[in-house]
Amino acid sequence: MDVKPREPLPLDARTLPARYYIDPDHFLRERERFYAGKWVYVGRDDEIPNPGDSVLREVVEESLIIVRGDDHEVRAFYNVCRHRGTRLLTEPESCVGKRIQCPYHAWTFDLQGKLVGAPHMEEGPRFRKEDYPLKSVALGRWDGHLFVHLGDNPEPLEAQLGDLIERFAPWGMGNLRRASRIVYDVAANWKLIHQNFSECLHCPVIHPALQQLSHYLSGENLPATESYLGGLMDLRDGIETLSMGGKSTRAKLPGLAEADRKRVYFYAILPNLLLSLHPDYMITHRLTPLACDRTEIVCDFHVHPSELARPDFDLADVLEFWDLTNRQDWHVSELTQLGLKSRSFSPGPYSDREDLLYGFDRIIKGAG
Amino acid sequence: MDVKPREPLPLDARTLPARYYIDPDHFLRERERFYAGKWVYVGRDDEIPNPGDSVLREVVEESLIIVRGDDHEVRAFYNVCRHRGTRLLTEPESCVGKRIQCPYHAWTFDLQGKLVGAPHMEEGPRFRKEDYPLKSVALGRWDGHLFVHLGDNPEPLEAQLGDLIERFAPWGMGNLRRASRIVYDVAANWKLIHQNFSECLHCPVIHPALQQLSHYLSGENLPATESYLGGLMDLRDGIETLSMGGKSTRAKLPGLAEADRKRVYFYAILPNLLLSLHPDYMITHRLTPLACDRTEIVCDFHVHPSELARPDFDLADVLEFWDLTNRQDWHVSELTQLGLKSRSFSPGPYSDREDLLYGFDRIIKGAG
Amino acid sequence: MDVKPREPLPLDARTLPARYYIDPDHFLRERERFYAGKWVYVGRDDEIPNPGDSVLREVVEESLIIVRGDDHEVRAFYNVCRHRGTRLLTEPESCVGKRIQCPYHAWTFDLQGKLVGAPHMEEGPRFRKEDYPLKSVALGRWDGHLFVHLGDNPEPLEAQLGDLIERFAPWGMGNLRRASRIVYDVAANWKLIHQNFSECLHCPVIHPALQQLSHYLSGENLPATESYLGGLMDLRDGIETLSMGGKSTRAKLPGLAEADRKRVYFYAILPNLLLSLHPDYMITHRLTPLACDRTEIVCDFHVHPSELARPDFDLADVLEFWDLTNRQDWHVSELTQLGLKSRSFSPGPYSDREDLLYGFDRIIKGAG
Repeated sequence: MDVKPREPLPLDARTLPARYYIDPDHFLRERERFYAGKWVYVGRDDEIPNPGDSVLREVVEESLIIVRGDDHEVRAFYNVCRHRGTRLLTEPESCVGKRIQCPYHAWTFDLQGKLVGAPHMEEGPRFRKEDYPLKSVALGRWDGHLFVHLGDNPEPLEAQLGDLIERFAPWGMGNLRRASRIVYDVAANWKLIHQNFSECLHCPVIHPALQQLSHYLSGENLPATESYLGGLMDLRDGIETLSMGGKSTRAKLPGLAEADRKRVYFYAILPNLLLSLHPDYMITHRLTPLACDRTEIVCDFHVHPSELARPDFDLADVLEFWDLTNRQDWHVSELTQLGLKSRSFSPGPYSDREDLLYGFDRIIKGAG
Repeated sequence: MDVKPREPLPLDARTLPARYYIDPDHFLRERERFYAGKWVYVGRDDEIPNPGDSVLREVVEESLIIVRGDDHEVRAFYNVCRHRGTRLLTEPESCVGKRIQCPYHAWTFDLQGKLVGAPHMEEGPRFRKEDYPLKSVALGRWDGHLFVHLGDNPEPLEAQLGDLIERFAPWGMGNLRRASRIVYDVAANWKLIHQNFSECLHCPVIHPALQQLSHYLSGENLPATESYLGGLMDLRDGIETLSMGGKSTRAKLPGLAEADRKRVYFYAILPNLLLSLHPDYMITHRLTPLACDRTEIVCDFHVHPSELARPDFDLADVLEFWDLTNRQDWHVSELTQLGLKSRSFSPGPYSDREDLLYGFDRIIKGAG
Repeated sequence: MDVKPREPLPLDARTLPARYYIDPDHFLRERERFYAGKWVYVGRDDEIPNPGDSVLREVVEESLIIVRGDDHEVRAFYNVCRHRGTRLLTEPESCVGKRIQCPYHAWTFDLQGKLVGAPHMEEGPRFRKEDYPLKSVALGRWDGHLFVHLGDNPEPLEAQLGDLIERFAPWGMGNLRRASRIVYDVAANWKLIHQNFSECLHCPVIHPALQQLSHYLSGENLPATESYLGGLMDLRDGIETLSMGGKSTRAKLPGLAEADRKRVYFYAILPNLLLSLHPDYMITHRLTPLACDRTEIVCDFHVHPSELARPDFDLADVLEFWDLTNRQDWHVSELTQLGLKSRSFSPGPYSDREDLLYGFDRIIKGAG
């Protein structure tokens, strides 16, 4: 174990004022800034492997269609017919074939969004099909991860991701395949989830099982950036991975440096992806803020396809460990949401081991 | 089948902006205009055939008592005691006898609304019974249909109905009796229900059973008026009525012209009555807007009393057909409500066969 | 029975305007005035008899910890950790031992609210434990009743209670012990509960069982004060207490004057305690306003400990009587809440036997 001292925080390092967590209007403005004004994580390439495969995603309450075209390109569209505004698709996951057809009057769009059928609409000065394609949303890809951006002329995804692309290339994330999913509905502000993810001071208090596998003072944090809050933890001697018991029947991910085979990297990537890289698997937590006090969290577990193909493949030890750990984290986050509502609340002092939270808060406040 | 060409709509004929469907404040103003400022359909004479019979109705969130007096006149009152404001009646349908008594302190009103009992209230300068009658609401009748108007000094019901009174006299609606009721709670704005009712372009897409009985391009529409949107459809050869299978064991309504024995008339009567006149039965859809995205719809089926009296009377073929058709309509209306919420939505183009909707929208916008 | 005439009310004595009951903004302001600006009843001494015993209470949506210290003093604290704002306790009733520890990062407070443990917080210019005690709330006691005041520098509890302390000394309330509790969720404004409690004109209409035990015109009212609305009722001849049947197997409370052994005192103590003193038991109704149209009511039954200790102690006759009577009262209060929403509502006339309500309304309006 290697406990590094942290840089002392400024004298006035205090938690955010309560309005950042409890004011519905503040929430809407903040969500607009971080979720309509940035690239938002929406899932993985391997969720829609074939032409016509589609998933629906909610971003700032917009229903979006993410669909793979005949040309194998992935595109994103607003789930809204250009005729009367009808929602086009309702199944969370489906294969639409070669066309998306409105269930009301049968307006029909191809997988590039082009209107190709509009019964009883006379082509002429009042109506030309070419004027009514599905409205599209920018889509970006990073090593198997899919992102959308609702804004006009967004900056490139790469600019938002910063040095992440290079940093995690050795894990070969694009090759991994989803093995399992757990969905949580958490009564806490989305930022409390990031903050909980970005410090381990609470680990000996609420995560006794984790504490047996990795000491909470191990590892180190990188300085917070606009792109992410990143840190790592060292596994204790004899521990192979984070799982019930700390053993693993799975091979280490190919290409990992020796040091990384004994570490776990925890990166909170703004605004809504918590990325955890383990020696033998990857977790993505996808956050969807539903209200100032409510966040949907989709927790996906990804492994190497050669492991997934093994007849004795089994991830139960990991799923049990993380479902337990997740629920412990959501519980204290929900308790914090409740306390922040109090008129008596005033921002509290951070310890030097909550440095990432201090950095996160500065980004949130726009002083990052 | 008789397909008439439609007059082309103006070049800028587009659906309404989204706020008309999704803005809660706009909804309240619009509901006030159309539901507190117009005659609103509240049911049928034969629901309260005898003195003392009463029903409760909600109009713009006001609970109203509709009650038949000893003099056989139907009257409408606010369901509010003049003492402390207590709601007087709670049963949706009841016979109150000769008096309406408050359940709190036993203030008692006769069926004309006069206060006739107020225990422990001393008559004198502070209190005279004559000053505290139930507050009444204007009530109007048209051929068995009952309407109320919440405003002061409303225009006559006849003025609002226009030429409807004369137009449908042959059907003898006042003689018909209710045979069945289905109630729906629909997650869509009330105007989407009117718009769905007023075009059949969607019929081949969502109503295959209807399409077998009547071609969606048959019949014709009247120009939209402030009173109603009206159209008709021809039954296909060999089809007797709209029912599962298209047959009817019921006699045609007496007094119908030959042509009307092969037609169905669909009239959306503003603000809240969808009237469907079939050769052998009548349907009323009564709409109650509950929120910008929620409407209660009471669907009543009315037949001639001589049919109702037959021992082998059976309306199951009609009920099944319309419950199916209604649910198909509510489903696409709900999908449209969902799509209209999108920031990406912009008004779409109408086809010439959506002429009634264009007329309806002009009335809604106040440019009718 | 002793029917006293009442003083006639002023000519313009009318019930409150509807906004006092139905306007959510008015509700918040009014709740702030009466529930954050006054001493609020939160329960009884005997709910937390031993050091470390604690209960949670909600006052104006604030979660408060009421806890008995090692020194046997009762104190009240906001249920909010001074570190990140986490809610500390979640069990409605518990024994915390000698410390209150935050479940998130283990900050630890003693029962006087002092911070005694804060792991990884370095003592120094940025942080001193003495700066982060739990935030406390003023706590007052009256003869076994506990009150809190959220304001700074509140007036003494005794000033708010007025002559109540002296008036009810003979009942020895501090000696009584809780025997039972019933909790109600009532869809009515908190003031409608006070008003219902403060007149018995409705008794012959809705409480036939009560009417058999005590005539609704018996007894007399005291003039309304800022502290309370008080009245009494005489038991009919042969009736021993208010219970199903009117008999009692319990001894009269010690120390009662002869006259008080045949009477029931009903005091609505502002803002949230309805106190009923019977010959052989005491009831407290604790009101918590949750919304303009919703109030939680905790109804507790208290008896002399010598009765509670009897092997044949039985309060079923009282519980059944009051659960019935309570529900009758909540029902008409809920009907009144519904009626007050109507646009047709206008304040109605009070009878002279509703004098306490007229006085209550003046206090509410600030003209008391």
